[in-house]
Amino acid sequence: MFMPMKMDVKGLLTKEEALFRLFEKWQPDIKVETIPIEQSKGRILAKNIFALYTLPVVRAAIMDSVALSSNDFENGMPDTSLWKRGVEYDFADMGDDFDDRYDAAIRVEDVSFSADGTICINDDVKVVPGMGIKAKGDIVCEGQLLLTKGRKIMTTDLAVLAVGGITEIFVYKKPIIAIIPTGSELIARGTKPERGQNIDANSIMLENMLLEMGAEPLCYPIVKDDPKMLSESLEDALVRADVVVVNGGSSKGSEDFCTKLLHGRGEFLFHGVARVPGRPLGMAVTDGKPVINLPGPTVAAFNGTDWCLRAIVARILQSRIEKRPTVRAILTEDLCTPMPMEYMARLNITKGEDGCFYADPLSKSRDFVVRSIGANGVFISPIGFGEYLKGTEIEVELLCQEEYI
Amino acid sequence: MFMPMKMDVKGLLTKEEALFRLFEKWQPDIKVETIPIEQSKGRILAKNIFALYTLPVVRAAIMDSVALSSNDFENGMPDTSLWKRGVEYDFADMGDDFDDRYDAAIRVEDVSFSADGTICINDDVKVVPGMGIKAKGDIVCEGQLLLTKGRKIMTTDLAVLAVGGITEIFVYKKPIIAIIPTGSELIARGTKPERGQNIDANSIMLENMLLEMGAEPLCYPIVKDDPKMLSESLEDALVRADVVVVNGGSSKGSEDFCTKLLHGRGEFLFHGVARVPGRPLGMAVTDGKPVINLPGPTVAAFNGTDWCLRAIVARILQSRIEKRPTVRAILTEDLCTPMPMEYMARLNITKGEDGCFYADPLSKSRDFVVRSIGANGVFISPIGFGEYLKGTEIEVELLCQEEYI
Repeated sequence: MFMPMKMDVKGLLTKEEALFRLFEKWQPDIKVETIPIEQSKGRILAKNIFALYTLPVVRAAIMDSVALSSNDFENGMPDTSLWKRGVEYDFADMGDDFDDRYDAAIRVEDVSFSADGTICINDDVKVVPGMGIKAKGDIVCEGQLLLTKGRKIMTTDLAVLAVGGITEIFVYKKPIIAIIPTGSELIARGTKPERGQNIDANSIMLENMLLEMGAEPLCYPIVKDDPKMLSESLEDALVRADVVVVNGGSSKGSEDFCTKLLHGRGEFLFHGVARVPGRPLGMAVTDGKPVINLPGPTVAAFNGTDWCLRAIVARILQSRIEKRPTVRAILTEDLCTPMPMEYMARLNITKGEDGCFYADPLSKSRDFVVRSIGANGVFISPIGFGEYLKGTEIEVELLCQEEYI
Repeated sequence: MFMPMKMDVKGLLTKEEALFRLFEKWQPDIKVETIPIEQSKGRILAKNIFALYTLPVVRAAIMDSVALSSNDFENGMPDTSLWKRGVEYDFADMGDDFDDRYDAAIRVEDVSFSADGTICINDDVKVVPGMGIKAKGDIVCEGQLLLTKGRKIMTTDLAVLAVGGITEIFVYKKPIIAIIPTGSELIARGTKPERGQNIDANSIMLENMLLEMGAEPLCYPIVKDDPKMLSESLEDALVRADVVVVNGGSSKGSEDFCTKLLHGRGEFLFHGVARVPGRPLGMAVTDGKPVINLPGPTVAAFNGTDWCLRAIVARILQSRIEKRPTVRAILTEDLCTPMPMEYMARLNITKGEDGCFYADPLSKSRDFVVRSIGANGVFISPIGFGEYLKGTEIEVELLCQEEYI
């Protein structure tokens, strides 16, 4: 039987409203920088790029060729018995230039040589001026527009830049995003947990999510639930970063100083969004920088980062928000959703022997938490929706390539 | 009018036959290594991963809570006027453990405090043992299978590994792929070309394509068309790398020593494939390692790397060959193809005001070469096909994210 959870949306902003409120109050400080092309993959161009050189500089053979003068063929196939390399003909491999006396290039396969080295040209070859030759500028022309502002540099663009003679490009600077993990119960990953302790699994995930978005993460050590220590880290991050993420302490507990701290420092924008998991997400603008108080549970932190930080980073980088690949999959169990909230469900997607994709909401799974964190699929249930019964086909975003399902 | 080029496929292998021939003669040397989880994104697991610890170690509050003893509620709501924090109740923020005397946790929102600090519990709260508590192992259990061999580590898996107490994982070692650019006409990128010179644009592109595939590229300096120098670089690469790519000199010109060199060193497998651009691709197995002689033109080098090195790297890494995202697009011009070869066309994809995608085969473009190198789309015409008229809808692979079209 389908059992929706009930949650209250009163006083909560939708994620669109939340971002709108931020973008009203905060204008990103768009910074640019010059970087070598070797580091430019995935970066966003801040200026149009024009070629510096013309290639071929003069000309080049298209194939592995023999270069000839078309004059010699004006009256049909000439007698080549006395021809000498470097006089009447020369070799020109693919991409090679050749002496100005030659104005045509025939394929090396169309000639043969007798035992004494005399060249012989196949009878069916017709030699006309310019044949087999890549002319000046056929590869690239000086001043030619190669790549336009706003382009995200693809791997193949690296060859375009190299061909154009470009060594450095002007791109939008990666925003520095500080991540401050908070919680007295947290211990650094790699430490054995004692009673009452929990491992900080978020920092490594958030760091890598931010890297994928094109940002530069700046991870702080874990801060205990102590207002003074949290304040110190926040102040440090506000100096060093473009955006500050305080992860944890976003809820209403006795130790949740963060909300209080942000209220007393800069302009507090809101606390609570109608998108779960991660409802108690808070946001402020402090010293002209967004400060995001991201909920602590890992799946909530993932969700908040996905909709909120992705949008903020794209705004700073002038980049597009990239959709994930999707598949249609059949629910193997009813999906419990916290109606009427927008809900990001984590689902495990498998491929059946029938070739169909199946989506497991993991609700019956023991160790639900770690299985949700590692689930390879994401399903977004919009506000007001939430009834998805076993057997329903839904569109699922993939966190891995389809080939790994 | 549609004008297919004519090319001869006699004596050429299909790409499938070419790979089959290689895989018959060469068994990859599967190497594994232990790496810190911080470097593990995108790597392929060589062993199953099991959790080292149980979390919560004992228990944790699900929400920001007040911890209580359910005994006190056996006869209904108790008198809390003399209750003291640390005796009859305590605070437990989300994720916190609490003293053994308490066996239930209610939401902090369900209590209030009078002016003198007395706790007051909302009347409608029902307290039962275990409520609001994440039990031992609800996050993760010691010995639990977390991730299976063959998985490609996703960003969210990093959190799974951290939660499980894992600091290092066992993965397939990245194959080292040597890239040796050859050609007397080539100059290093960033150098001004003189007459007869061409800029090496391939190395930076191939290096980044290999990085994307999960390999470790090892770029050599440009080698002139000199058999001794090429031989020296090849011998060095055969010692240092798992696979050697000689880029250029694959054709039949007078300076194309590479084919000759490979014939005299190890087992030469074939020269020429029925996939263009890049027909004169050659392959040998030398000292138990694949040596690929990749054609020099940039689009041909891209094509050869895409079908050939991708398959070789996947075989060494035990990984899957990942498809690119695709869109359906309408041809804006006839697409000239070298029938009956398999053909990789590079197309520029744009989005029309009608929301449709359009594919420009660039055939009418001046500077065809640089525009093809930078084109954002790829279309594969299978062997035996090749007639694609203006207005035809074709399925195009994208080299960029759809949002950037």
